[in-house]
Amino acid sequence: MIDADGNIRDLSSVVPDITPDVLSAEKLRAIAAVDTGTLPLAGGTPRYGVPVTGTGKFIAIGLNYADHAAESNLPIPDEPVVFNKWTNCLQGPNDRVVIPKDSKKTDWEVELGVIIGKRANYVDKDEALEHVAGYCVVNDVSERHWQQERGPTWDKGKGFPTFGPVGPWLVTRDEAGDPQKLSMWLDVNGKRMQDGSTETMIFSVAEIVSYCSQFMVLEPGDIITTGTPPGVGLGQRPEPWYLKAGDVVTLGIEGLGEQRQEFVAWSKDTRA
Amino acid sequence: MIDADGNIRDLSSVVPDITPDVLSAEKLRAIAAVDTGTLPLAGGTPRYGVPVTGTGKFIAIGLNYADHAAESNLPIPDEPVVFNKWTNCLQGPNDRVVIPKDSKKTDWEVELGVIIGKRANYVDKDEALEHVAGYCVVNDVSERHWQQERGPTWDKGKGFPTFGPVGPWLVTRDEAGDPQKLSMWLDVNGKRMQDGSTETMIFSVAEIVSYCSQFMVLEPGDIITTGTPPGVGLGQRPEPWYLKAGDVVTLGIEGLGEQRQEFVAWSKDTRA
Repeated sequence: MIDADGNIRDLSSVVPDITPDVLSAEKLRAIAAVDTGTLPLAGGTPRYGVPVTGTGKFIAIGLNYADHAAESNLPIPDEPVVFNKWTNCLQGPNDRVVIPKDSKKTDWEVELGVIIGKRANYVDKDEALEHVAGYCVVNDVSERHWQQERGPTWDKGKGFPTFGPVGPWLVTRDEAGDPQKLSMWLDVNGKRMQDGSTETMIFSVAEIVSYCSQFMVLEPGDIITTGTPPGVGLGQRPEPWYLKAGDVVTLGIEGLGEQRQEFVAWSKDTRA
Repeated sequence: MIDADGNIRDLSSVVPDITPDVLSAEKLRAIAAVDTGTLPLAGGTPRYGVPVTGTGKFIAIGLNYADHAAESNLPIPDEPVVFNKWTNCLQGPNDRVVIPKDSKKTDWEVELGVIIGKRANYVDKDEALEHVAGYCVVNDVSERHWQQERGPTWDKGKGFPTFGPVGPWLVTRDEAGDPQKLSMWLDVNGKRMQDGSTETMIFSVAEIVSYCSQFMVLEPGDIITTGTPPGVGLGQRPEPWYLKAGDVVTLGIEGLGEQRQEFVAWSKDTRA
């Protein structure tokens, strides 16, 4: 855990790992009550992993910012667009991302990630946030050729190995503040490409959680990534452009921390 | 396990469960070498569960039989259509299926399921079957309204709770024979609705495994369900018709066993 001064503290004397059962309101309250000063400081410069283990679903929402739908030349949806990222693309926030073999359209998307803390099936919008444990930064890395030109679903372009950087932190709901008032940004090689806010989401976090719960059972540890504001590679004018080996992507969301990924070329040695 | 005479034998002295690591060729050979006569008979009439635990991905192929594409009024695809079934819809082959709240278009699909035994990423078609542990029956239960009328992806209509009956058995590759020569059938209330064969698949099992491995990492325990032959409710003429509470669906594939599901109406008590 991160203490009030930003130090990394070893939480293993309290819980062995942040597993789905740890995400309940009761367990999170118990962890919040721990006197952080009693926990040992983590030594060295630890690698950040995914801030939760045991994720059973990595659900993604498409076209959830009106300006991004416009830059994608797609209409504003009447209801959330839902697709899937294969869970084994999940990785730490600063791990390198592998550009797939022969890919020419690997793209970036800064997104607010929602981590489910309590089972949700047919929940109303008013109660939906009670099922949320907290929030995190997600880079919904996307291969546009496979997403858009290889058949009617998007799932082919969203779950390549390493395409799911999540973290660095799970910020609990009580600490994150209003999820619809968070600024967010993404740079490629230091140049600002995305500069938005969750204020301009078409469907709010509460609406998305309620909506998804109508046709699936959300479970603790599931992650929903909620769409991206404008400024992705696909939306660049006069021509879209995409990531190449050596590019560095940095991104962040207000209060949720930052990520940094080096993009590398695929080879047999980059095997995830 | 099922012995040569069809008796259920208790395998727990050999392996505690059929977890992903048990699906390697070496482990399956070791299990096959066990003298089944030494294993205790299972007493009573055990419920069949999903024949493998720890499934990380439940991948589905659409429109993989030319006649089914025609009955769906959709073109024959140039390459496999890939979508997702949420893994927490997996259930035993004879468990009841819950028709979702307000659903009027709950449909059936008998399909050959492929259970991955060995990690697969960028594998060629010629080597693809070496990554398969075995086969099973799947009913790819589908809610057509949510699949087809609620946005551009199919994932909303395929993963309602209880929509993934799998089993009764995992039949290992060496015992299943040629996966492209298996007859398959499905009855609704005793009336034959689907009567097909894996011979008429557009994309073979080997092609599908190779194809999926180009844009995801297949892992042991993953299940790919490979599409359905004609005869689903959506394809009925002059009018499509769908399942209602009280209907009983039975289905099977040559050598892979049979399933039987009672379909029931949703209520708060049917919570999965």
